[in-house]
Order: sequence, then structure tokens, then C-alpha cells
Amino acid sequence: MSQDQAASVVRITDVAALAGVSIGTASKALNDTGQLRDETRARVREAAQKLGFVMDARGRALSSGRSYTVGMITTDSFGRFTIPVMLGAEDVLSAGQLAVLMCDTRDDSVREQHYIRSLTSRRVDGIIVTGRSSDPRPPIDVAIPVVYAFTPSTDPSDVSISLDDARGAEILADHLLSLGRSKVAYVSGPRRHAAASSRASAAAAHLGAALEGDPLYGDWSEQWGRQSVDLLLRRSPDLDAIACGSDQIARGVCDRLRELGKSVPGDIAVTGFDDWNVMALASRPPLTTVNLRLEELGRLAGQALLELIASGRPASLAIEPTLVIRASTIGS
Amino acid sequence: MSQDQAASVVRITDVAALAGVSIGTASKALNDTGQLRDETRARVREAAQKLGFVMDARGRALSSGRSYTVGMITTDSFGRFTIPVMLGAEDVLSAGQLAVLMCDTRDDSVREQHYIRSLTSRRVDGIIVTGRSSDPRPPIDVAIPVVYAFTPSTDPSDVSISLDDARGAEILADHLLSLGRSKVAYVSGPRRHAAASSRASAAAAHLGAALEGDPLYGDWSEQWGRQSVDLLLRRSPDLDAIACGSDQIARGVCDRLRELGKSVPGDIAVTGFDDWNVMALASRPPLTTVNLRLEELGRLAGQALLELIASGRPASLAIEPTLVIRASTIGS
Repeated sequence: MSQDQAASVVRITDVAALAGVSIGTASKALNDTGQLRDETRARVREAAQKLGFVMDARGRALSSGRSYTVGMITTDSFGRFTIPVMLGAEDVLSAGQLAVLMCDTRDDSVREQHYIRSLTSRRVDGIIVTGRSSDPRPPIDVAIPVVYAFTPSTDPSDVSISLDDARGAEILADHLLSLGRSKVAYVSGPRRHAAASSRASAAAAHLGAALEGDPLYGDWSEQWGRQSVDLLLRRSPDLDAIACGSDQIARGVCDRLRELGKSVPGDIAVTGFDDWNVMALASRPPLTTVNLRLEELGRLAGQALLELIASGRPASLAIEPTLVIRASTIGS
Repeated sequence: MSQDQAASVVRITDVAALAGVSIGTASKALNDTGQLRDETRARVREAAQKLGFVMDARGRALSSGRSYTVGMITTDSFGRFTIPVMLGAEDVLSAGQLAVLMCDTRDDSVREQHYIRSLTSRRVDGIIVTGRSSDPRPPIDVAIPVVYAFTPSTDPSDVSISLDDARGAEILADHLLSLGRSKVAYVSGPRRHAAASSRASAAAAHLGAALEGDPLYGDWSEQWGRQSVDLLLRRSPDLDAIACGSDQIARGVCDRLRELGKSVPGDIAVTGFDDWNVMALASRPPLTTVNLRLEELGRLAGQALLELIASGRPASLAIEPTLVIRASTIGS
């Protein structure tokens, strides 16, 4: 780039001159508005293409009263859960010609307020709020359309596209039961996290008599997965399955079982949760788990926002994860 | 949000009326321009605050000829390498009141062209181009300031903020030599990747006589790390260190050595590359590695872009990774 190049930007007057029409006609032709003959419209477009003319989206924005821009606020520094949500949303919004402004609050309420002011002053058409946690959060206070993605709003009148955690746990419990496993332990993350407790409760309720002992709560870590195996086998030496609240925990469980000479899934079947490739595929054996469909969640959030912007009334949704079967439950 | 709320937006005329000044005076006070008495400026600001008035950034943008917006184009779907770069850049740009538009090309040149047109039509002040690979890429063709981050431009006259891969490999080689290791093998990713070959060559040159055999090339995976151990020990049973091109490879190396009854670092020291927490900390033992300082790289890219936008002439830079020592080289 150079200042010279920047100065040589093609203007609509250049296009009008080359096409031999007035500026008003050129503008109508390029904006696809007004009454024009097809051949005039075609001549203007050809001239625009020849000159490399680019429409100024800001002009369109001011004349339509819209900025064709939306904000995406995350508390997650665009981490593992937010990224796919963001990509899905961006895909839908960008196909609708809306650009997405990134706002990373780093879980800091002062930064969040800064971004909300900045987005408001830029007159964005709407905002998607997302985060690392599936625990509900208080809504943001703005007078424009807002959709909550992954992290739902505590206000039931808001539009939230969230994940049906409990259903994911049920799907995995069903899978273990269908394989004839009848002594299933459950190991999850911190009890204070909605994702840990809702998965554990749903699995426990679904497993019924096949549940061995109360679910164990710990960290979202491989280390906790390894430690939990020793606790579980002391409590119930004849376990035939361990369902885990995350792939990280499940990977630790598989590692520790192998070290103890237990075969997975021959002796004990293991399930994860998340379908995080780095864990689920690197695990030995690879993990049966549920895929959270976060990119689909992001797409639905983007669609809901487009609908809200168009004054529609989209409904809140909880997306069902899908079962992914690998060697940790069905050996080769 | 509702249409009613949107309609009740406070206008500068309301602020001027409350402060008892003309619209021109109110505008000067709020934009911090023109000659005004301090007390007038204060009165206008107080009125604006009382009414909850928000400046329209689009007005500022049109009057200044700038959009106060930059684009960030990535080929990486905002993956592991791009995210920290993006966060660092966003931090600097947002402190400078610039908003960042996300553009995820998914490594698709048609999508890239779409985004470049979209950013041009939005009259962004500049663009940061980044990606998953440290291999140089052809420059994008736009007449505005561009900075390349992590993935450098093939055009040496462009501003690229990249990573000094070779220096990272030298730092790790020095560390192993300083510990008295004298039979060091090198295991890296695919030879066609600049990151794999530049790290391997730099390590080999630096290790000199302490290098055991030629560097091995494979995948960026734990599985390749595990496989490589068998190859290396067959070739050189008395190895005392294995330096790896990534943390993933190094984690696999540690796992396989443990399975073979070799102590890390007692028998064999192991080093990674990347400081990717998910791998480096979960590895048993945790990995000595180099931290790529990607967030700092992003910040420097953001600063370089601000400088270019202000018509400065920032220089290209290659950032040096820093050594992170953990138990895989210095046992407890």
C-alpha cells in the first residue's frame, strides 16, 4: 500500500463518466434501485467493473439507517467453546453481508461495559453474547437485538441458543446400557458448574439401577480422571463402565486403566463428553463421546439474530449433542 | 430491546438544549475540538452524561475520513495459533479506539477475496493478515495499510511480525547442552513445513557433535512422538535427550519412554516447542519447552498497523520465543 494508491480510489463520478450517465443514474444502477433500462444498468456495472469501483458500504449504511455490522461479545477470550460458536455465527452473518466486530471482555465487567458503549456508538444492528460457561448470565442492557449463544441469559424473555447438556448425558447412558453395561460409575468436573452437575444428574437418573455409587466431582482435567480411577475401583472393583463429564477426564481415566492392566473397553467401557479432537482422538483408545455441535449452535444464533434484526420473533433453543462412537466403548 | 427503545435514542439536539448551547457548540465540546471555555465544555459533558447521550462513531468516521475499524483476516479459523495473536492485536487496537472485524477465510481463496472486497467497501483503516502456518504467503492486493502477523508476507517490503523459530530451537539446544546432555536426537513434524525444517536445522547446527543421527520428520502428533521413540532407541540405544519440534510430539515421546521403563529426565531428557498448556502441562512429566509469545506478537502487529495508519514506517520483526523449564529436563 502507499498514499498514492490510497489517493487513486475510484469514485462514482468516474464510473458515471465512463458509462456516460449522470451520477444519480450510476448510483441507482449500482444500488439496484429506481427505474432504469436494463442496458443502462448493464453499462454502468461494466464501467464499475472496468475501473475496479468498490461501493462504499458506509454510504449504504447511513442511507439505510443500518450499519450492517454486529458485535460478538465473549467472556472466553475466544477459547475452545467460543471459537466454533463464533465461526458458525460469522458464517451465517457474513453470508447476510453483515460484518462481525470482535469484543473480548476477558471476563472483566469494565471491559464489557467499554465494548457495549463502543458497539452502541457504532450503531451495530445487533449483538451476540457468548462465553466459556453454560451457566446462565445476566443480560446486557442495550436497546438493540441481542442473542445469547452457548451461555444463556437468565432472563427467559431473551433469545438464548444453548446446549442441552442433560440430553447429551442421557444419550451416552443409553449407549452404555445398550451395550449391556450394568455397573456404571460417573466422574465429572466441579459440582458448582452447571455443565458438571446437569450432566451427572441426567446420567444418574437415566442409568437408574445401573449406576454404581454417587457421581464423583473434581476438576476438568486428565489428572482428576487418573485419580478418580483409583477411588472408583476401591469403591467398586467390578465396575464395567465409567462415564465422564468431559473428554479430558475420560482420557485420564483410560490412561490410568491401562496402567493398572485393565482393558478398555474389554473390562471397562469409557465415555467422554465434548468431542474435543485433541483429547478424544489422542486418547488410547479414542473416545466415544458426544459432539456439542457448537458451530451449528453458532449458526442458529446468527440466524436468530438476523431474524430479530428483521423484527421477527425467533424462539430460544437448546441444541441436542450427537453420539460419536469410537473404540473406548466398542473395541475393534 | 424493542422498537420503542430504539426510537428513544438521545440526540445531540437534546444535549444542546439541556446545556443551553447551540448544536455547534455541543458538538465541539463533545468532540474536544474548537475554542470553548472550560466551563461550557464541562456543562455540555454533564448534560450528555445526564441524558445518556452516546456519540455516533459513524459521524466521527465520515468527518475524519477514517472508519476507526480494521479487518483481521485469518486462514486458520481462529485456531490455536491465531487466537492469541488476535487477542494481542485486538487489545492494542481497541485501546486505540479501533474496532476489529473478523474475517475467517477457512483457507479458501474465494472467501479471502470476498472478505477483502467487504473490508475495502467498509473503508477499513487497515488489515492484519494472519494464519496457522509460519510459512510465508503471497501478499494481499489492497491500497491500505496491511501488517502480516505470524504468517509473514513473501514480499520483503511488507511489514511482517513473525516468529524466530530457529532461535527457539537454539535456546532449547543450549539448555540441553548446559545440562551436560551429549547424545541428543531431534524429532519434528512434516519436513515440508517451514516450522519443522527450520527448527530441526537450527537445533542440528547448534548441537553439533551432540546431535545423534539426522533429525526425524513425521507428523505434528502424539502418535508420531510415540512411534519415533522406538525408531530412535533402535538407532541409538544410549540417547540421553530427545528434542521435539512440538509439545504434542514431546508428550507422545514421554508416554512411550515411560511405557518402556525409561525415566524422564533421569535417563532421557525431553523438550517440546510451543508451550501449549493442554499438552505441556498434561504431559507426564510436564514439558520444558519454548513459549511462542503469540499474544505479544499480536500486540506488536497491532502497534505496527497503528503506526502504518498514522503514516509511520514500522519495521518487520521476528520475535524470540522464551525458555520455559519444567520437569521433563530437570527432575524434582
